[in-house]
Amino acid sequence: MNESQALVGVIMGSSSDWETMQHTVQMLQQLGVPHEYRIVSAHRTPDLLFEYAKTAKERGLQVIIAGAGGAAHLPGMVAAKTSLPVLGVPVQSKALNGMDSLLSIAQMPGGVPVGTLAIGKAGATNAALLAASILANHDEKIDQALTGFREHQTTKVLADSLPAGESL
Amino acid sequence: MNESQALVGVIMGSSSDWETMQHTVQMLQQLGVPHEYRIVSAHRTPDLLFEYAKTAKERGLQVIIAGAGGAAHLPGMVAAKTSLPVLGVPVQSKALNGMDSLLSIAQMPGGVPVGTLAIGKAGATNAALLAASILANHDEKIDQALTGFREHQTTKVLADSLPAGESL
Amino acid sequence: MNESQALVGVIMGSSSDWETMQHTVQMLQQLGVPHEYRIVSAHRTPDLLFEYAKTAKERGLQVIIAGAGGAAHLPGMVAAKTSLPVLGVPVQSKALNGMDSLLSIAQMPGGVPVGTLAIGKAGATNAALLAASILANHDEKIDQALTGFREHQTTKVLADSLPAGESL
Amino acid sequence: MNESQALVGVIMGSSSDWETMQHTVQMLQQLGVPHEYRIVSAHRTPDLLFEYAKTAKERGLQVIIAGAGGAAHLPGMVAAKTSLPVLGVPVQSKALNGMDSLLSIAQMPGGVPVGTLAIGKAGATNAALLAASILANHDEKIDQALTGFREHQTTKVLADSLPAGESL
Amino acid sequence: MNESQALVGVIMGSSSDWETMQHTVQMLQQLGVPHEYRIVSAHRTPDLLFEYAKTAKERGLQVIIAGAGGAAHLPGMVAAKTSLPVLGVPVQSKALNGMDSLLSIAQMPGGVPVGTLAIGKAGATNAALLAASILANHDEKIDQALTGFREHQTTKVLADSLPAGESL
Amino acid sequence: MNESQALVGVIMGSSSDWETMQHTVQMLQQLGVPHEYRIVSAHRTPDLLFEYAKTAKERGLQVIIAGAGGAAHLPGMVAAKTSLPVLGVPVQSKALNGMDSLLSIAQMPGGVPVGTLAIGKAGATNAALLAASILANHDEKIDQALTGFREHQTTKVLADSLPAGESL
Amino acid sequence: MNESQALVGVIMGSSSDWETMQHTVQMLQQLGVPHEYRIVSAHRTPDLLFEYAKTAKERGLQVIIAGAGGAAHLPGMVAAKTSLPVLGVPVQSKALNGMDSLLSIAQMPGGVPVGTLAIGKAGATNAALLAASILANHDEKIDQALTGFREHQTTKVLADSLPAGESL
Amino acid sequence: MNESQALVGVIMGSSSDWETMQHTVQMLQQLGVPHEYRIVSAHRTPDLLFEYAKTAKERGLQVIIAGAGGAAHLPGMVAAKTSLPVLGVPVQSKALNGMDSLLSIAQMPGGVPVGTLAIGKAGATNAALLAASILANHDEKIDQALTGFREHQTTKVLADSLPAGESL
Repeated sequence: MNESQALVGVIMGSSSDWETMQHTVQMLQQLGVPHEYRIVSAHRTPDLLFEYAKTAKERGLQVIIAGAGGAAHLPGMVAAKTSLPVLGVPVQSKALNGMDSLLSIAQMPGGVPVGTLAIGKAGATNAALLAASILANHDEKIDQALTGFREHQTTKVLADSLPAGESL
Repeated sequence: MNESQALVGVIMGSSSDWETMQHTVQMLQQLGVPHEYRIVSAHRTPDLLFEYAKTAKERGLQVIIAGAGGAAHLPGMVAAKTSLPVLGVPVQSKALNGMDSLLSIAQMPGGVPVGTLAIGKAGATNAALLAASILANHDEKIDQALTGFREHQTTKVLADSLPAGESL
Repeated sequence: MNESQALVGVIMGSSSDWETMQHTVQMLQQLGVPHEYRIVSAHRTPDLLFEYAKTAKERGLQVIIAGAGGAAHLPGMVAAKTSLPVLGVPVQSKALNGMDSLLSIAQMPGGVPVGTLAIGKAGATNAALLAASILANHDEKIDQALTGFREHQTTKVLADSLPAGESL
Repeated sequence: MNESQALVGVIMGSSSDWETMQHTVQMLQQLGVPHEYRIVSAHRTPDLLFEYAKTAKERGLQVIIAGAGGAAHLPGMVAAKTSLPVLGVPVQSKALNGMDSLLSIAQMPGGVPVGTLAIGKAGATNAALLAASILANHDEKIDQALTGFREHQTTKVLADSLPAGESL
Repeated sequence: MNESQALVGVIMGSSSDWETMQHTVQMLQQLGVPHEYRIVSAHRTPDLLFEYAKTAKERGLQVIIAGAGGAAHLPGMVAAKTSLPVLGVPVQSKALNGMDSLLSIAQMPGGVPVGTLAIGKAGATNAALLAASILANHDEKIDQALTGFREHQTTKVLADSLPAGESL
Repeated sequence: MNESQALVGVIMGSSSDWETMQHTVQMLQQLGVPHEYRIVSAHRTPDLLFEYAKTAKERGLQVIIAGAGGAAHLPGMVAAKTSLPVLGVPVQSKALNGMDSLLSIAQMPGGVPVGTLAIGKAGATNAALLAASILANHDEKIDQALTGFREHQTTKVLADSLPAGESL
Repeated sequence: MNESQALVGVIMGSSSDWETMQHTVQMLQQLGVPHEYRIVSAHRTPDLLFEYAKTAKERGLQVIIAGAGGAAHLPGMVAAKTSLPVLGVPVQSKALNGMDSLLSIAQMPGGVPVGTLAIGKAGATNAALLAASILANHDEKIDQALTGFREHQTTKVLADSLPAGESL
Repeated sequence: MNESQALVGVIMGSSSDWETMQHTVQMLQQLGVPHEYRIVSAHRTPDLLFEYAKTAKERGLQVIIAGAGGAAHLPGMVAAKTSLPVLGVPVQSKALNGMDSLLSIAQMPGGVPVGTLAIGKAGATNAALLAASILANHDEKIDQALTGFREHQTTKVLADSLPAGESL
């Protein structure tokens, strides 16, 4: 991870979100997307959140990915402080299984957008892919990595086989 | 409204929330609770929100009531910036009827509390009553007003009558 | 626990709620807030509930915290019998994961407020913090403890670190 | 309505519930079931609620029907104070369409039962029919009225016709 | 269990419902309520269901308790074929946790009532208690057993104690 | 409508369902599918329901479409009495918007299938189209009508245009 | 499994759906319905999906069963490319327990039908039974197998017994 | 609208979605983002959908915005056929208020991302803003327009005033 030239910033509300958000980081690494990641809590470190969002653009970030669970305010508040594209990952919450996270992130008012992904691991992976597709418009290397990933996953599905009927 | 000595600050995300939040203001007025109210948007005026929350205590506020709908971040972000008691009113949203507002306000992570009231008008009224009950512990005049209100509403229910059976 | 001068009363519907509500008690202890706690069931000991709520104020309580699950009537019925501030903690229920508890506590009619916290442990912890913030308006020691807690939790988040990219 | 020998007591939280609960009263009248009805609010007249429930049996009631909306505590709290059969009607609430009312009434803890009917008018009608079926076990006149009602409604459905295909 | 003079009939859709519905049977036994219980499936043995419901009254049953999960048609179809009071227990389903069971049982159309209890064990227990309360109107022995049960459960709650604060 | 050789039977619980289910009948007419339609109520005419389902096959029906709302037992109970393919249309209910209808129809236990369509008009239309596709496997005329309908609707979408940008 | 003359095609989005969809295949085998099954992913192999759906009819398939979870687009997109009857099985998803799968499959717009079964194993089994009932209209052997299955399951329920009361 | 150099493609499933999606188009116009818009239906014109998605990149599009309601497959299927960033707008559906649309769009499996916005008008507006923020990374004019919009909306909120207390 080379932070000096990071294009994507990945933040999450607490270390317990890492179990989900590591899938974002792993996919960014796999695609060769320069990135940084750290803990920024909307509720417990609001000043850091503002600082992070406000300086993101001048530090060279082009996309911010924020993961949070429950009353998940992190993505929306980042979006309130920057006009960079912000992607939100609803972390699966304990009681309500991430339905609260999903609604808290997706139901933003008109004027301040957050692109919301699926709840949990799938959403974390897809946030990285969506960030890559945003960068790929102007970065041939990422474009190729993304195309390669997509082709590979298609090939993998085509090669998948199911247990034979006789073995049932 | 005498803002100089306001004990309760009422904020809401936009002028469209006034239809709901006016019931908070009306009840505070009815109970004689010194208060102020204004528009503060978590998403469109985040700096004002931080300023408002950070200075609330030194300006003499003892309770903050925040109303918001959809991905309702206002109450939680105020609570992130002050240790004053914060009460949240989920405004009824268009598509999801306030279920998104309720979850976005109530499902706060451990460490930063928001006392959440019911969706819509009932919650707006009750936020004022709860604020009054908080103040009443150290303010005899508000305590009497609150007791009077409670007795009056009991009396009113007892006096209510239903259409006679014959008229059915 | 020194019951004679308790400022916060913590009640819950059954001993099975203790797993959740102990987090309220632990946080009150940590903040040095004088408190008491006991089992009071809305449905199985309604007379005790009424007695408890009716005498709470004269016994010196300034806040009541009630935890309950399912058709969680305890917080609302306490609020019906006292004008003290009442905070409700929705205990996570078996079948519906606390969605029933949340709605039964939060959706109070206009006139009788309950400040509702999040479902489960986070809500239980936050009920104690909200009670402390209510008391802190007139109690410098609790105010300092609360401020200390808030600063400490911010510091802790700032010190948290995530596994390095290489270790992924 | 002859209150002196009422067998079924119908209560509701406020006069706004009458629009729903009148269907209970109308059906009881239609079936010739002696009944009484009045406003009793769990939250605004808790003492009346306790008095009503506690004296219901000695006053000769054999079934209590309670209608309420939102955090609908009325049926459950009546059931907490009497061992008479209690039937609950979830009144359709404004924001959540009665889902909160349904869960607040149906999800009672083991030990204190409430027989819950459908949300709104259908439930109000059915509460009367269920009360009648309870009484019919020991009251031939009500049994005949109930049987007549059931046969009549079957006949009515059988006689119903739909617009002919040509008229489509 | 003396089936010959059963007053309450307990039916369930499959043997997998026994885990829930045994709590109905145990409570009826504990209260000394004469009862019978068996498997009757709305979907797999519809003729048996009709036969059971149609003959229930002449066989001396006064209440029918039906437990079912998912698209739980058993209680409603029994109620369609008898004017006896029918109580429904929503069995917790695998995917939707019993929300489907609850709605399929509670949301009956006007004209054919089912008294619905809570999802799962609590509801199964309460169905027995509600049946007992129905019978108790005309059966002093059951009335005493029920009163005894209610008093005992109140006493038990009053005797319950929580871990001392020091042990936290 | 030529009932004597009907291949599809359309039934609904009450005349109020006609507003929805007429779209099934209209589409069957449009496609030239021989059909019949009538009111059959699971709860108010259970014997007729059983008779209808039991004799459906011998009367020449090849598909049954059943529409119902709320605790919608009609499709599932028909399926319990016939091995013909049964399609269910969840009628939009008043309080819960058809979520109860959808779950009551779709969540059938293993062994007795109902093919469930969408809530309301779209589902009613699609039930006819699905019935036609079932018949089309062995009926060239219906196959051609269905293919024609599908091609026509594609053509219609392709021809649709939106207001020009200037007119915004 | 004899693919050359398959009448039913079973597809699923990934090998992880096999745990659910094997119940479809097992039931088809048990009923002697000629079938094929394989992985076809709407999102990762969209071209294969189109090819599969477009050629299904000419290859002799009469019914397609598609299982998918989450944003389950497979059944609906197959239905968009063929006028064969398409049945959809909502696979239980991790976060939302299949509620997302159910709505994504059932809520199809008017014009393109999918017959939706229950979430999970019960739905997978029932998809096979519904396919068999569709084929049985013109295939006596399948009709007999289906009738046999239905009779057997009725017999099995009738033979089921519950633990005796004494053993409780 | 100058289609020849469109950077953003806006598609929707039917002309009835225009009421929502016009807000996307209006915002793109206001920000001076070159765009095109048209009807493409996943279910009724699947071939057009594939063609549109497959050729989008070579035609110069950099972002695709897709709006759809109910079982909303349009955004996800576009994403399956292009590696361009795809944003999805859940159109508010009739029965389920857009909850079905939201889940069908947001809950995509890992590997094929869709950035989901809020249900209805707010989401449609925000899709345009998010697309603009994506383009703004490499387009100074759009960046300025976006910054201007954001500043203007902040100014507007700050200037908003509420009715004075006296007028209540």
